[in-house]
Amino acid sequence: MKHFYTKMGMLVALSLGTVIYSGNTLPTTATTKHLTQQSNRTSTNDIYEQAVPSIFAIYLDSRTNKSSVSGTGFAIKAQNELLIVTNEHVVSSKNQIFYLINKNGEKYKGRVIYSNKDDDIAFLKLSQKPNIPGLEIDANINKFSIGTSVYTIGNPYDFLFSMSNGIISNLNENVVFEDGDFDELLIQTTINVNPGNSGGPLLNEDGEVIGIVSSMLEDSNGMSFAVPAKTIEKNIKKFNGETF
Amino acid sequence: MKHFYTKMGMLVALSLGTVIYSGNTLPTTATTKHLTQQSNRTSTNDIYEQAVPSIFAIYLDSRTNKSSVSGTGFAIKAQNELLIVTNEHVVSSKNQIFYLINKNGEKYKGRVIYSNKDDDIAFLKLSQKPNIPGLEIDANINKFSIGTSVYTIGNPYDFLFSMSNGIISNLNENVVFEDGDFDELLIQTTINVNPGNSGGPLLNEDGEVIGIVSSMLEDSNGMSFAVPAKTIEKNIKKFNGETF
Amino acid sequence: MKHFYTKMGMLVALSLGTVIYSGNTLPTTATTKHLTQQSNRTSTNDIYEQAVPSIFAIYLDSRTNKSSVSGTGFAIKAQNELLIVTNEHVVSSKNQIFYLINKNGEKYKGRVIYSNKDDDIAFLKLSQKPNIPGLEIDANINKFSIGTSVYTIGNPYDFLFSMSNGIISNLNENVVFEDGDFDELLIQTTINVNPGNSGGPLLNEDGEVIGIVSSMLEDSNGMSFAVPAKTIEKNIKKFNGETF
Repeated sequence: MKHFYTKMGMLVALSLGTVIYSGNTLPTTATTKHLTQQSNRTSTNDIYEQAVPSIFAIYLDSRTNKSSVSGTGFAIKAQNELLIVTNEHVVSSKNQIFYLINKNGEKYKGRVIYSNKDDDIAFLKLSQKPNIPGLEIDANINKFSIGTSVYTIGNPYDFLFSMSNGIISNLNENVVFEDGDFDELLIQTTINVNPGNSGGPLLNEDGEVIGIVSSMLEDSNGMSFAVPAKTIEKNIKKFNGETF
Repeated sequence: MKHFYTKMGMLVALSLGTVIYSGNTLPTTATTKHLTQQSNRTSTNDIYEQAVPSIFAIYLDSRTNKSSVSGTGFAIKAQNELLIVTNEHVVSSKNQIFYLINKNGEKYKGRVIYSNKDDDIAFLKLSQKPNIPGLEIDANINKFSIGTSVYTIGNPYDFLFSMSNGIISNLNENVVFEDGDFDELLIQTTINVNPGNSGGPLLNEDGEVIGIVSSMLEDSNGMSFAVPAKTIEKNIKKFNGETF
Repeated sequence: MKHFYTKMGMLVALSLGTVIYSGNTLPTTATTKHLTQQSNRTSTNDIYEQAVPSIFAIYLDSRTNKSSVSGTGFAIKAQNELLIVTNEHVVSSKNQIFYLINKNGEKYKGRVIYSNKDDDIAFLKLSQKPNIPGLEIDANINKFSIGTSVYTIGNPYDFLFSMSNGIISNLNENVVFEDGDFDELLIQTTINVNPGNSGGPLLNEDGEVIGIVSSMLEDSNGMSFAVPAKTIEKNIKKFNGETF
């Protein structure tokens, strides 16, 4: 059965549409490593430290220190290939080459190798393979997930590799927006997201990717949305030419 | 002793004032049931699953699939009667009949049988009795509650049966607003609420109703307010013609 | 190494620039005391109850019941002196004398004895010594703190002694803003703060001060900033005429 939603506000994409050259942007230098969980109190930090090496800031311009971030991307492993996943709207410019940096300040060229505007998803391949395992995906979201804690790491307003948290607020099925956009499943969260967060991973308490942080409801207080992980998997199959 | 507050911003009610006919709104279909708590990590989901069958979206128009939600209501049991509690401002139109749906998509007519504008509280009676127990009320709030976790389930911007959370930020006693409004006790929370949340239950960690989510401070970041549960109890007594 | 950030939005100070005489403001009367932690569920309330006696609302005008709060301050003990710490921008008027009240409604005169505009920090001395221990400082913040829970108590929009919470979102090193402002370390949190929160303590889960809540990113969703506790310590040494 299809469900229709009236959208009172507007969903706004979270990339920075215009690149403004004002000031210099360099990443925070910090070594990151996998941590053994020491106590309950450090668990959210563990999620951060384990995930952040696989997360990137995506720029339209090679002069990453002079331009604003376009959005966020994250590495996953698909059939022994390291793919960078992001929103299609983060890399929707005419460019085919983007510039990615990680929290250690290492810079990579990334080429768009697949994009699906309907699902707002794109894959990039890096010019050099970084020594990172990539994030694990957990596509098994279900209605019992409402209320569970979720996290994202992204680059809101050029504050690179910032963490935000919230809960899953709703799992909206078969959403139809007034502009015709359709989503089979749209994960709604209470995470406060901002321009630059687009394309970042929505992480569960095990640090697994359950979605891609994509948009917020304009003028709302804390209503943000993520493309579910099963849409990543569907598009990986499509990219690999498999039936799905 | 009376206390007076200067209200710098404006408290705005959280119902959608104007019904806009644009698109179709249907509830998410999902079976809900009482769950046994399995582990600490599922507890917030337990609060959701246990409460949501007793929560309703309230519409001014029978064509609930074509109109926007006016607010939220929730069922409680008062002297073996099932009452729907909501804010007075959610049902302040000239209508006496409203249209309520639950998360299963079941539709009910609701008649306003009591309303108190000063306390911003109203009771509705459903045309048919749904097979739900109703939520428990815990009116025993005190200053030691500041900091404790709270939750609401409501219908922000037509995203039906969405959960949001926060902490009790303050318990404001004897609040006088510039427009003359007076509240003996106003529960202040950090929950991000939106139009459509009005009339929803403020739940504690046991899933008990401790208030009615009613308003937010305009232009504030995350300052929302709830009518305390003891005001529900006071009005139930008033409704029943008892002294109080 | 220096890092530069492009600031897309504007950082806005959280004090109320203009004192508006509209209505009366009196503190909530409530006795507060140190509590023994009873269970995990009351821990956030414990942080509140233990900290709030050392926290003050700061007014420009002696008629605190007729004016709006300028910001928040908190007591610390430095070399057996009780100092009130706040942001410089909270007490940047020409006044040297400010009026402080605590949650019990006790009123004090406070004199600015030290201020550092670059670090946005000021110290006040009270005319009478209140019988409070003052808050403990923990300046030992590091990158493993990202994700940990933080709290503040302040006076947003004249709702006195309100608590808000969030996580440490980022630890931004060597931040240079477009207006030339420089911060060696800027603690970024997800706490929703509002005008009146400026100068309030950023507390960790042990109720220790790890920073001073100072600003939010204008137009952002939930991006707020705090001066780190080591800047308090640096300025205490400077105030005491020691080398640092």
